[in-house]
Amino acid sequence: MKSDATRTLLVTRSDLRCIVEAVGANTLMDELIHALTEALRTFDGEQTEVRKRDGFLLESARQPGCLEWMPVMQRGHAVTVKMVSYSPHNPEERGLPTIIATNSLYDVQSGHLIALMDGVFATALRTGAASAVATRCLASPDSRVIGLIGCGAQAVTQLHAISRLFPITEVLGYDTNPEAQESFARRTAFLGLDVKIVPLAELEERSDIICTATSVAVGAGPVLSEKKLKPHVHINAVGSDLPGKTELPKSLLERSLVCPDFTVQCLVEGECQQIRPDQVGPDLITLVKNPDVYEPWRERPTVFDSTGYALEDQVVTALFLKHAERLGLGTSVALETVGGDALDPYALLHTPEAAPKRDVRLATGS
Amino acid sequence: MKSDATRTLLVTRSDLRCIVEAVGANTLMDELIHALTEALRTFDGEQTEVRKRDGFLLESARQPGCLEWMPVMQRGHAVTVKMVSYSPHNPEERGLPTIIATNSLYDVQSGHLIALMDGVFATALRTGAASAVATRCLASPDSRVIGLIGCGAQAVTQLHAISRLFPITEVLGYDTNPEAQESFARRTAFLGLDVKIVPLAELEERSDIICTATSVAVGAGPVLSEKKLKPHVHINAVGSDLPGKTELPKSLLERSLVCPDFTVQCLVEGECQQIRPDQVGPDLITLVKNPDVYEPWRERPTVFDSTGYALEDQVVTALFLKHAERLGLGTSVALETVGGDALDPYALLHTPEAAPKRDVRLATGS
Repeated sequence: MKSDATRTLLVTRSDLRCIVEAVGANTLMDELIHALTEALRTFDGEQTEVRKRDGFLLESARQPGCLEWMPVMQRGHAVTVKMVSYSPHNPEERGLPTIIATNSLYDVQSGHLIALMDGVFATALRTGAASAVATRCLASPDSRVIGLIGCGAQAVTQLHAISRLFPITEVLGYDTNPEAQESFARRTAFLGLDVKIVPLAELEERSDIICTATSVAVGAGPVLSEKKLKPHVHINAVGSDLPGKTELPKSLLERSLVCPDFTVQCLVEGECQQIRPDQVGPDLITLVKNPDVYEPWRERPTVFDSTGYALEDQVVTALFLKHAERLGLGTSVALETVGGDALDPYALLHTPEAAPKRDVRLATGS
Repeated sequence: MKSDATRTLLVTRSDLRCIVEAVGANTLMDELIHALTEALRTFDGEQTEVRKRDGFLLESARQPGCLEWMPVMQRGHAVTVKMVSYSPHNPEERGLPTIIATNSLYDVQSGHLIALMDGVFATALRTGAASAVATRCLASPDSRVIGLIGCGAQAVTQLHAISRLFPITEVLGYDTNPEAQESFARRTAFLGLDVKIVPLAELEERSDIICTATSVAVGAGPVLSEKKLKPHVHINAVGSDLPGKTELPKSLLERSLVCPDFTVQCLVEGECQQIRPDQVGPDLITLVKNPDVYEPWRERPTVFDSTGYALEDQVVTALFLKHAERLGLGTSVALETVGGDALDPYALLHTPEAAPKRDVRLATGS
């Protein structure tokens, strides 16, 4: 990426909207699924260092949340860090999404912040794309019925992403929150699919693919009964992101091929918390690198344990930046106190000509 | 802090310049020293959770650097995270500071990014202020001669901060880099002090207070010989920030009271790496809470092991934000994809009226 080492590119929600308008939501999702698949297929642990996320537990009278950092380094090139919070009561209490995030890109040569972008939309998109990649490896190719347990923000992009790869004819939704249930068909209308709200038992019985994306409280899972699941069901379990927060019954995990996105992290905060390390199946990278090996599992129960993987954030950040550059979007900001005498912290402050009073300008490119 | 939960305040280098112009560099430093002292004196580990920094080692053909995150949470209120890089060849190779950083403030209720600001100037300022606080506790009150080993960016604010608390009459500088030596008097001219470059031996022999702030390579220390130091010398060792990178002789540490800024971190990457945990003295909080206990050490050799403490970043971030708000500085940006239907990631992208094409505006306040 060509960049001015003294300026930072901001990619805001309005820039992302311009990107979606210019590229098209379907094409953008297809590009992301493709880019993520390639990043996983060609992943080299010598070149890319992915850290398990870490963070603060945010206490609350009602239900805990967290604020976490998810760093990944492409050696010799860049570091991507997503700061992400999970605040389960945001929608009802503040009209804000459950998951709020920002993605940052740093130059590893100088440490300079190259770009900062919204991570709310990026997270929803990449979490959908990750499930699509796992589902392509593990679900029966004629899967036509998809069930969404939890019909919130993440369910929209789960459905969008998976519908790009499977001949979905029927979408079954279930949520304990009546508002989320009622609005789900409207929020997914752009997909042109047959979306209906059904009882949980019907969803479980009829779905070829199930996505769980709930704000179930720590210790309150599972969110699915395991009665009468299809023998070939593939489940994307997206909601686990805290120690103690799980969505699936342990017995289901024990009889399924469980594929974590990032094993060390899933053992701490994913569905894998419930099983022994030797019961954990191949991770997403292994799956994508060896699709033939796992193809027989398409006729048997499988689980993608999706806690969120920093590599996914690296891929979506790079994709959005590529489009922002191509379309001349983003705002270049002189944020860091750099560009004056490198040995003088006060240089830019002393020299009027070096620092215009107002230096936020609209980028016409980068 | 009053804030719009859908917008983020950017405080850029030009905003910081306006703050310095409005407040005055001396007053700002005095305020920071005061605020940091109060934060340390009233520190309550139940209310504030400070994390040891963690990060990536940035490999280089010449000398390694690092990119690290330094998080601290004020429970129920906010999380401050500094992202900071150390790239020792930045000045000569890129005309950029050795240390580049940005400071972020998050709301713990919602996870929203409240503000993002430059951290280059903030880091230089707070590192100076921390040394001033430690020096006030540990140096002889009539210290008049200060020696700077390493005359780069950090030396400027070390000198500035300490000169606010001591009747400095003479400043002795030494650097292995001729350019840094030559320009030091010019870069510190605003202090009106008598600054001279001297041989290292003279600096060691004549200084009451010494600050080491060097880019010495891992394993290449110490940077000071220990011959003929004053019996009451107080040393602020500022340069340690990587495992293996130390500036002081082990024998000096063993006969001095060594005060780490953050013990667990100093044992990994500070001067404390060289000694046993039982040889480590009180940390900065203990020192500031109990100044009388350590007063006798003002006549004996003492070392402040300053690796950089996230609490310092919290304090300087809050101080700059307070002034930015008061002066109506900063730029309010609609960064995160929030403010539309919280359950629909595509909402803001679908609804033209909810997201103006360009929504970066200049703040007239906050």
